Amino acid sequence: MKQEFYNLEIKTNGQDLYEITNHLNLWIQENAFKEGILNLSILHTSASLIIQENADPDVKTDLINYFDKLAPMNNKLYKHISEGKDDMPAHIKSALTNNQISLSLKNGVLLLGTWQGIYLFEHRLNSSNRTIICHFLGV
Amino acid sequence: MKQEFYNLEIKTNGQDLYEITNHLNLWIQENAFKEGILNLSILHTSASLIIQENADPDVKTDLINYFDKLAPMNNKLYKHISEGKDDMPAHIKSALTNNQISLSLKNGVLLLGTWQGIYLFEHRLNSSNRTIICHFLGV
Amino acid sequence: MKQEFYNLEIKTNGQDLYEITNHLNLWIQENAFKEGILNLSILHTSASLIIQENADPDVKTDLINYFDKLAPMNNKLYKHISEGKDDMPAHIKSALTNNQISLSLKNGVLLLGTWQGIYLFEHRLNSSNRTIICHFLGV
Repeated sequence: MKQEFYNLEIKTNGQDLYEITNHLNLWIQENAFKEGILNLSILHTSASLIIQENADPDVKTDLINYFDKLAPMNNKLYKHISEGKDDMPAHIKSALTNNQISLSLKNGVLLLGTWQGIYLFEHRLNSSNRTIICHFLGV
Repeated sequence: MKQEFYNLEIKTNGQDLYEITNHLNLWIQENAFKEGILNLSILHTSASLIIQENADPDVKTDLINYFDKLAPMNNKLYKHISEGKDDMPAHIKSALTNNQISLSLKNGVLLLGTWQGIYLFEHRLNSSNRTIICHFLGV
Repeated sequence: MKQEFYNLEIKTNGQDLYEITNHLNLWIQENAFKEGILNLSILHTSASLIIQENADPDVKTDLINYFDKLAPMNNKLYKHISEGKDDMPAHIKSALTNNQISLSLKNGVLLLGTWQGIYLFEHRLNSSNRTIICHFLGV
């Protein structure tokens, strides 16, 4: 068994869900990975990783709006406000979703459902440079 | 090290927590897996995976009720309503829990706490056929 | 590839975030692990694991307060109340965060962001003895 690493760099442009499935598939194809675990780690606590439906774009909008209501940008609610009104809500949304996802690969293909996509969920309002570590362990 | 895959198919019958621990244990025993990682991926975004207490059934009821209040079935709250009032709440509940869990296996036994069970958390109201990919990597 | 296991035992003293990053780093150094997956499993459903900012301690306070509001300690809201007012909220907070995290290791170092720490998130009010299984698979 072998291990390979890849730093996926994504420039985000405010709160949104950025699909990264194709980036991962390209890396898998370039390396001809066949079977194994692909462990993804986002190196931030104000953006996160989720697997969600990639068919209807309204799902993305609803998710963003929902999480905004669940963790409101209201400085009166938090002590940690020095980095802006969106920072503590970003940490909370990160805690409620995932910093890390392990995917299974078989026959050179990520095992995802028909409508599943892998997303970087950006919780900050401004542009940010985000790094996701892609770590393959397998054959 | 070897890798094995198994598609665990579960027919659900509405919102509930369906324990799958025994299904996993059976597969582990049949294959005499000893030590490794068991990566579980549910191929859907309206049902999810969680580890929860399997002692008192009231915990299941409370969890279902809680998540229903947290992500209400109210079409006025969402744009994505074409698949029914339970669909967008199902995507939200999926985002708030997990699509993927990695379990550790040692001496042929899943390393779980005394009261821990692994559950498929169904968020849709109707019956559904759900697939969980079980991927073992180890010896 | 090899596999090693370690039971990390933490005595908690009420609701708080207990950083375990240094415990993990020590185990990694003692065993001279170089490259692989470190799978963490907490053997409880009333405490959980999260990756969060370890710079400003206010983030910890805000997270604890936030989750307390999201899952209130109010027995009128739940059926499962026999283990105390903090027990069902603890199960909910556990479901909303993680029982399991997989970390990637490269060049003998956990791949974490500059401000990321790994925490045991204790949701019960009293002291508890908590076990986290650390399972390394790699070289």
